[in-house]
Amino acid sequence: MDQLHRLPEQGVTDRTALDALLDSQWVGVLSCVADGAPLAVPMLYVRDGDRLLLHGSTGAGALRRVATGAPAVLTVFALDALVVAPTTFESSVNYRSATVRGPLLPLPDDERAAALDRFSDVLVPGRTAEVRPSSRKELAATLALALPIRADGWLLKVADDWPATPAEADADDDVWSGLVPVRTSLGDPVPAPWATELRVPPSVRRLTGRDA
Amino acid sequence: MDQLHRLPEQGVTDRTALDALLDSQWVGVLSCVADGAPLAVPMLYVRDGDRLLLHGSTGAGALRRVATGAPAVLTVFALDALVVAPTTFESSVNYRSATVRGPLLPLPDDERAAALDRFSDVLVPGRTAEVRPSSRKELAATLALALPIRADGWLLKVADDWPATPAEADADDDVWSGLVPVRTSLGDPVPAPWATELRVPPSVRRLTGRDA
Repeated sequence: MDQLHRLPEQGVTDRTALDALLDSQWVGVLSCVADGAPLAVPMLYVRDGDRLLLHGSTGAGALRRVATGAPAVLTVFALDALVVAPTTFESSVNYRSATVRGPLLPLPDDERAAALDRFSDVLVPGRTAEVRPSSRKELAATLALALPIRADGWLLKVADDWPATPAEADADDDVWSGLVPVRTSLGDPVPAPWATELRVPPSVRRLTGRDA
Repeated sequence: MDQLHRLPEQGVTDRTALDALLDSQWVGVLSCVADGAPLAVPMLYVRDGDRLLLHGSTGAGALRRVATGAPAVLTVFALDALVVAPTTFESSVNYRSATVRGPLLPLPDDERAAALDRFSDVLVPGRTAEVRPSSRKELAATLALALPIRADGWLLKVADDWPATPAEADADDDVWSGLVPVRTSLGDPVPAPWATELRVPPSVRRLTGRDA
């Protein structure tokens, strides 16, 4: 998305900044090559230290393909603001974008249960303690994959800037410009029709900031 | 992301639903193949009838590569809710996800100015009328690409469901489950440091719902 910003995007080498972006999002796009053509699938992921965990059904086509060890890249982005400049040419967006390159490693049977619990615990912290453990059958139906975050395997780009000034943009001084922030938030939990009499559990209250 | 939902995702063939998703988002991930490996770049796009418009610098590597006519796919997704089920196995997300397959067509010189104006007008409706037209030099520096939305070139998947019931999930009846909505919104416009004395223009006021 560098090409959308007036300045070359900043390549950021700070691993903390990468983790902050990865931890702020839920979904990335997993891209791989299938029969010479690009294949792309949005995927839930969580970061677990120096790796990303992904999961899915053992029957899922796209995931099985990348599970064979084919090169893959997971792209995660956050759109932070529309940058409304004094000219259309200078208008752009502020964003953070990361790519993490594979291959993906299927987790062996003896690591799968722990990885899937970790997955749930990062997505909705504390939830696994509120529900029954996964059964053998459920575990057997679930593919768990790890994408290591290797020092040479990721790229982070950040655009976080004011619009070009009128002078830089060769525009009139009286044209307003600025930023329009883009925000993502979680709304109030909505109970399932059969759960309206139950109290929203601590995990969900914490997630949505409805807990002291 | 089908593999993340308890039911096979619904493939939706309604073009209106595709357009609604595409029109609700700003950024997609463009995936192509470069030297046999997957290449993925987040890109701003707008829908213009039966095509998607993308743009970028004529010098941008990834874009130039797909501009040569290589197969490409743009993935757009919206995360609508976390689905908190009575078990971790049944937990998932509600989402809408679209893929639109290329190749991308570089627009000829005589269509570029109109396409770039259209791009700006869809992103921030009315903005082009508030700023000076793009110069020849600016137009020459900008690559404009069209990705046709062909009847056989797109896929839309939608997951929009309650969590599994306790009976379906083989879980206790007293475990809360439900949805946590995920929302994206635009915040109040923030003027650039040199524009604080200027009135926020109609285009930006309309965009952020701050206009009558």
